[in-house]
Amino acid sequence: MNLEQQTPVQPADYAAIFEVAMSEFLARYPQDGMYVPIHALLQCGGKRIRPAMVLAAAEASGGSVEAAMPAALAVELFHNFTLLHDDIMDEAPMRRGQPTAYAAWGRDAAILSGDALHAMACEALIEAPASQLRPLLSRFHRTAIEVCEGQQLDMQFESSPDAGPGAVTPVDYIEMIRLKTAVLLAASLSMGAISAAAPPHVVDELYAFGQHLGLAFQLQDDLLDAFGDPERTGKRVGGDILADKKTYLRIHAFVADPQLASRAPLAGDSAQKVTFFCTAFLRLKSVEALEAAIAQEASQASDALRKISEALPGPDRALSFLTNLAENIATRTT
Amino acid sequence: MNLEQQTPVQPADYAAIFEVAMSEFLARYPQDGMYVPIHALLQCGGKRIRPAMVLAAAEASGGSVEAAMPAALAVELFHNFTLLHDDIMDEAPMRRGQPTAYAAWGRDAAILSGDALHAMACEALIEAPASQLRPLLSRFHRTAIEVCEGQQLDMQFESSPDAGPGAVTPVDYIEMIRLKTAVLLAASLSMGAISAAAPPHVVDELYAFGQHLGLAFQLQDDLLDAFGDPERTGKRVGGDILADKKTYLRIHAFVADPQLASRAPLAGDSAQKVTFFCTAFLRLKSVEALEAAIAQEASQASDALRKISEALPGPDRALSFLTNLAENIATRTT
Repeated sequence: MNLEQQTPVQPADYAAIFEVAMSEFLARYPQDGMYVPIHALLQCGGKRIRPAMVLAAAEASGGSVEAAMPAALAVELFHNFTLLHDDIMDEAPMRRGQPTAYAAWGRDAAILSGDALHAMACEALIEAPASQLRPLLSRFHRTAIEVCEGQQLDMQFESSPDAGPGAVTPVDYIEMIRLKTAVLLAASLSMGAISAAAPPHVVDELYAFGQHLGLAFQLQDDLLDAFGDPERTGKRVGGDILADKKTYLRIHAFVADPQLASRAPLAGDSAQKVTFFCTAFLRLKSVEALEAAIAQEASQASDALRKISEALPGPDRALSFLTNLAENIATRTT
Repeated sequence: MNLEQQTPVQPADYAAIFEVAMSEFLARYPQDGMYVPIHALLQCGGKRIRPAMVLAAAEASGGSVEAAMPAALAVELFHNFTLLHDDIMDEAPMRRGQPTAYAAWGRDAAILSGDALHAMACEALIEAPASQLRPLLSRFHRTAIEVCEGQQLDMQFESSPDAGPGAVTPVDYIEMIRLKTAVLLAASLSMGAISAAAPPHVVDELYAFGQHLGLAFQLQDDLLDAFGDPERTGKRVGGDILADKKTYLRIHAFVADPQLASRAPLAGDSAQKVTFFCTAFLRLKSVEALEAAIAQEASQASDALRKISEALPGPDRALSFLTNLAENIATRTT
């Protein structure tokens, strides 16, 4: 082996390795009919963060990328299936710079292609190592149901009042984002470890790591919407505020001041509305509470990773991928 | 064992046995939120023909009802998931005498409850006998994808012209009903046999039996719509004709006479329209062609069953259940 071959592979390589395997997998299916929206969605990008997490967790646990590929395919196809159906519920026009399946082919095609993609995700997982198949299926389908529960809570929260009976609390909100987002990241890491036949405590700590990571990430999203640098995030400041979206900040602020809505500027002047709410979030210490929640999740994520890092035999690229995940939360600006 | 205990159990008992197991399975899930439409649909009836086929095929193959129950749950929950989503696409108001989930809770709830029910079906199947898990999963998920393909063809046919380029042929139509309906009946029988670790030729012939059975049944449906006795079918004569539905009869008639539409009575007089098409179906020998197709499927179904009936060790109730399925096609009037 010469020095060049020993050059450390970058963490981003997991996404590239996955991309090749996904193309091969998709080539088994027809290109027409209900498969058109599926190929269109899967081929127009996406960061492949979840499958990269599966593959890195598998390697970190001493397993191979090959043995973990069925699980990596399953989580990425599943994630994209949820996007197809979420875009119907949100009546979203665009996704990844392309018209959504809902917008391009209509409700029924988006429902059907999503259903097929869910089944394709399941079909991918069948090829997992036989000895690990049952625990992988258990984690995968349980996660699928939890993601649906999270989406249901999200929909329910949309029509909940800001204050008074039935108002959403910060605890409710964290449970919603845990189910809607964090459990799939947690499942990605733990399914990688299961594919590698890792011992149960490694599987469990990677699951905990992924879940805290997912919560921290989603909570960061709320903070960046109101206080991020638009030049870095690429998003308009206060998009969630203008949409009256129930973020952690808004929910916390309405618990602290149930009359907040009565003093908010009338719709129309966007800048004034964003300023009003950002000021309120600071005054009511919602920002402080959110930063504390993020710090807590980030710290619990690091703790979970630290507990097993000694036990992880995997190569540097896998370990540094996991460490980077933990470190990036704290310094995230985009 | 006394005589009373030896009284042969009726085939319908499979549905009753299944009902108990399904209630126990459903009790593991919450009763609120997205589970409300799921419980409502599963508790308002249904003939449970698919799970009964799973259980009978398992017993006929020398296996137990218990070992086949995960497969029986999977096919019935999957079937009900497809109903939840089909009712959105059809914008159907009623199902089994109750408002559909789509009508009662709206599009988004019906999408989400369907997605969760699909995952619940997968979760049920995990408990299948470990040695049979992988072949069961393969058959189940492949069938799920085929059912989606069938639904997609059905939707595509709806907007196809009756005659000229892009018109649907009887061969296209049979492929559509094969995918949309027959493969799930075929999968039910074969998954029962797989659960019982039956030899491959038994699994394959039961699959063929179920597929021909399903085709014969669906084709009978088309015949009964136009020429059935409404007092027996409980349906209005010519419902499909009035809805311009592309049945085997209509498709065959338009192949024989592409100008048929130009002589059809204008919408408005329902009885006249039904009479016109029924007369055309007889004159153009569409009825003859359909009866021949039904007879062929029924005969192939019986052949498939006959090929393995000697090899099936199972108890009388299982064998008579399968024989009844084959015999009922020929004499079906409802």
